[in-house]
Parts: sequence; C-alpha cells; structure tokens
Amino acid sequence: MSSDNVKVAILGFGTVGQGFFELFNSKKKSLALDNVSISEIVDLKYGHIVNPQDDLISNLKPVEDGSKIDVLDIIQKSDADIVCEFTWVNFKDGEPGVSHIRKALTTGKDVITTNKGPIALFYNELKELADKNGRNLRIKGTVMAGTPSFNVMDLLPGSEVKSVRGIFNGTTNFILSRLDAGENFDKALQEAQSKGYAEADPTNDVDGYDAGAKVAILSSLFGWKRTFSDVRIEGIRSLKDSRDRKGYKLIGYADKNDAYVRPVKLDETDLLYHVTGVTNAIQFDTDTLGEVTVAGPGAGRVETAQAALTDLVDIIGK
Amino acid sequence: MSSDNVKVAILGFGTVGQGFFELFNSKKKSLALDNVSISEIVDLKYGHIVNPQDDLISNLKPVEDGSKIDVLDIIQKSDADIVCEFTWVNFKDGEPGVSHIRKALTTGKDVITTNKGPIALFYNELKELADKNGRNLRIKGTVMAGTPSFNVMDLLPGSEVKSVRGIFNGTTNFILSRLDAGENFDKALQEAQSKGYAEADPTNDVDGYDAGAKVAILSSLFGWKRTFSDVRIEGIRSLKDSRDRKGYKLIGYADKNDAYVRPVKLDETDLLYHVTGVTNAIQFDTDTLGEVTVAGPGAGRVETAQAALTDLVDIIGK
Repeated sequence: MSSDNVKVAILGFGTVGQGFFELFNSKKKSLALDNVSISEIVDLKYGHIVNPQDDLISNLKPVEDGSKIDVLDIIQKSDADIVCEFTWVNFKDGEPGVSHIRKALTTGKDVITTNKGPIALFYNELKELADKNGRNLRIKGTVMAGTPSFNVMDLLPGSEVKSVRGIFNGTTNFILSRLDAGENFDKALQEAQSKGYAEADPTNDVDGYDAGAKVAILSSLFGWKRTFSDVRIEGIRSLKDSRDRKGYKLIGYADKNDAYVRPVKLDETDLLYHVTGVTNAIQFDTDTLGEVTVAGPGAGRVETAQAALTDLVDIIGK
Repeated sequence: MSSDNVKVAILGFGTVGQGFFELFNSKKKSLALDNVSISEIVDLKYGHIVNPQDDLISNLKPVEDGSKIDVLDIIQKSDADIVCEFTWVNFKDGEPGVSHIRKALTTGKDVITTNKGPIALFYNELKELADKNGRNLRIKGTVMAGTPSFNVMDLLPGSEVKSVRGIFNGTTNFILSRLDAGENFDKALQEAQSKGYAEADPTNDVDGYDAGAKVAILSSLFGWKRTFSDVRIEGIRSLKDSRDRKGYKLIGYADKNDAYVRPVKLDETDLLYHVTGVTNAIQFDTDTLGEVTVAGPGAGRVETAQAALTDLVDIIGK
C-alpha cells in the first residue's frame, strides 16, 4: 500500500472497536501513522459517525434509530481503504460479520477482523474472495487476541508445522484452575461470570465452541483445509459432576489428520499444565525447532485491539 | 534487496555453519530462494571453498595450511552480498568475529551472525557502522537460537517492552533441573558435558557469561544502551555446596534501570519455574499485552541454523 492517506472504517463500536480506537490514537505518533486516519465508525447503538474526534468515547451517545442503519450500504459507499470488522460473534451463520467482510472485499477494501464467527466458518471462501479481488484479509485477533499465535510462524520461514495444540479459551481455563483449587463447577462458573470472563450465556466458552473456532482457523491457516464443523468439539461440562476433575485443561489440537477440542488430563511435566487462569497458550511442533510455546492473554480490550493494530501496520507496511 | 542473484558467504564451518548450509539447501526450494546461492565458505580447518556443491559436507576434508588463511582479505575481495559470521564465541575481545563483521559491513556486505561475543560486546558500535554503510546487521541467533525471542516484538508494533526476563542458557538450566531431581552439582555438570550441552571448559555457561551476553544484547535492542560489562553477572557455582539449591533458575533480567543474571529461587506459580532441561524461555512485560512468554530450544545445529535462515529471508524480503 502506498504512503498516501489511508482511511480506516470501524464496524462495531463495542469493547474491541473502542479499544482499537483508543489504542490507535495513543500509538499513532510512535508508529508514524500520521497518514492513517479513522474516517468513519458504524455501530447499531451509536450510529454512523464520520470523521470522529479523538475524544469521541467520552462523548458517546446512543442514537434513537440505530436498528435502521444499513451497514452494507455504508460499506458499499465508503471511501475507506481498510474496514475493521468488530461486530459480535455468531458461530451459527457468521452474520452479520461475514456479509460485512464480503461486501468490503468486493468493494475495494482490505479487511481486518477479530471476529471468530465468520472466520471459523468461512475462512477459506473469504481468503479466496480476498485474493481474487487483490485485497488483504487479516485475522490475527481471532486466535489469542494480540498474543503472537499463528503469526509466530512468520518468524520461522522454512519451518514446517507438524501439529499445533494449545489452551485457546481463557474462561474455561479459569474455571478449570478453580476446579484444581477444589472449587465446585457452578461456583467457578459464577466467579468467571462475576469477573466478566464468562457471558451470561456461557455456552460458547463452556461447550468448547470458542476454542473449536480457533482450532478450525489454525487448521485452515496451516493448510489442513477444515472448517468449524470438521472439528470434534467437547466442552468441560462433563467435568461438572465428575469425581476426577483436577489437572484438566481444555486442549485444542490440530494436525493434518485430526482436529479436536476436549478436556485432557495433563502431566505435570507438560508446560501447558502450568498455564493457569485466563492465560492462553499455543504450542507448535516444528521440523526445525521441535516444540515452541507461546503464552499470553487471549482476550481483553487493549489485548484484542493490539491484534488489529498489528494487522493494520502489516497491511500498511506492504 | 532486489531479486537479482544473491551471493552468501559463510565464515566458520563448524556446527552452525554446516547446519546452516544443510538447512539452506533443504529449504531453498520451498522458500523460492532459487536466486540465492552460497558462493563461498571460509574455515581455518577446511580452507576456502568457492562455489560449494550440495554434497560438500560428506566430502569435507581438512586442509594442511588452514592457519595461513587470511580471512579479512577474503572478505575484502569477496563479491558476496551477505556474509554469515559463524566463527567461535569470545567474550574477551569478540575476535575474530568482530573484525570479520567490521570488514564485511565496510566492504558492501550485509551481515548475519549467531556469534554472541562480538554482539554482546560491540552491538551498538556495529549497528552504527551498519547504518552508516547502509547495510543490514541481523543477529537473531545470538538469543535463543531460532526460537522467536526479541523478534516477537516485530509482531507487536506499538507495544512497549517495560522489562524482559528469561532463562537464556540451556546448559545451566539442565544442571539446575538435575539439582531439583536431587543430583549433586558435579555429577549434573558431568552429565551435561557427556550429553554435549556443556563444553570441556564450562565457564561461559556455569559462570553466567553466556546468559549475560544475551541480557546485554536484549538491553541494546530495547534501547537501554548497555554492553556486556554493564550486566551484573552471577553464575550457578554458589549453589554447588549450598544446602538450599532446589527450585532455582538462572534468570536473566533487564529493564531501563537494571540488568543482571543470577540464580533466583522461583515460586511454583511462575511459568519459568516449569521450563526444565535445556529449554530456554523469554518473558516480556509489555504495555498492551501484559506478560507474554515464549519457550523453545536455545541451541542446537538446526535450531541455530533456523535463526540465520530467518535473518536471510528477512534481508532478502526487504
């Protein structure tokens, strides 16, 4: 991309959108991104905001007619170079994210997204669409937020990933750490909810869908073509009434033959055994280095915004 | 660098040099490096080999007059675009590596090195020299071989490193793991030597110089200008006759105010506590992600060669 002015549109102004807006503004100078601006924001609650001021968030007010906003039409007409898709996760049909991404890619925009739904379900199709249209599709934030995950392999040219495994969901890892400490399942879940880790409906986390989405995405990225429905997913509910419920981790795994998420009782010599609380971890088995492990946050406002900022700098640097 | 033919010279054809030669040849095709060739190799044992064949290593023979080879003259006259400095480590004056690097940078070559001596002692000066001459100086292999270490921050644009700590020496970590298992110090050291981890003279490892070199290098890279002599170094010999010698790690640490290597008794909740054997680990404390940890091999033939290959692809991709 040239060094001309670059316009960025944000779709979805919840935690991730606001976090990105703030992080972008605070890091813009040190990253010498003076030629980059956030040109518009679209959110069903806050409306369509053009040329937002830096102090936008402290002055944010809901609009009355948000549900009438035609996001696809706004994307179509937008002169943005890059669209950031930060709307809600939906593992059923990927909407509305997948339609936003398709529209952006086919109307001349690069896309950055942290939205696991459309990517877990449709990555291969969307990547083809991006390639066909000569656009970038960047998805760092879909796996472990900003913590280096699959992109670590960019630092290892020539190295082949034989398999990947990890702890890809912080909420369940928190709950399992509490079970290890002797807490019961329901209390641990309530604690996760009161700390804001788990949502009111904890299905996506507890039943393994969120971790399964990441396994599907990793499988696609490493060339083991697979989508969400190809991943065998078992969550942690079976541990609720089990007597044997200590030392488990919700492990996601993929190689060219297999892809699953399930609770696995780990040995204490396994580094992943010691990844506790909401921390995530990814472990690559490679031909040149053997095992490489990365651990760090897998969610959070600034943490996820970092992923989108990494993607943005990556696109602009091209 | 343009996509014209790129010539690479190798200085030092021991474990790392041979490992790199083999890895380069085996990965050349998958990395589409058809325009890159290893044009010459210089080694005091094997002589000056021009346009080596792929099966060189199996036909390798010592030369009689190796000590008469004038490496600096060969660098001067070389038409290589990139010089790989893989000679031996010397923490006293960085020779002969530092002279090789200076000569290469001032005669139009980019430099890749895995040699900790010259970099720990003279990185700031050499980087200035590289910049002044418009050349690249790449040093991935000086910290944790090919395992992503300081270059992980390339994946986190805008993120600030507040401090860095880690386990930067596999030999001592192996010995300390054996002490944890109840072994005595001398036996553990012998075991490390018999496995090929520790050299006959284990000073560089056991007395902390090797780890100290890495702390000096990290300090320079993160802008806390410091050289080898500024790092407070304490090795693990004090644990030899100590009764309290379990649970220690040889921790390297740096921030803007401090830089040290010393044995530290870690708590079991510390992920580094569980990094055992020859594995290395690095932990960054960052403003956007909090704590990020990477663990992997810190030495080895292929593992170190991967670092140089990463640097090579990085230079060529520019």
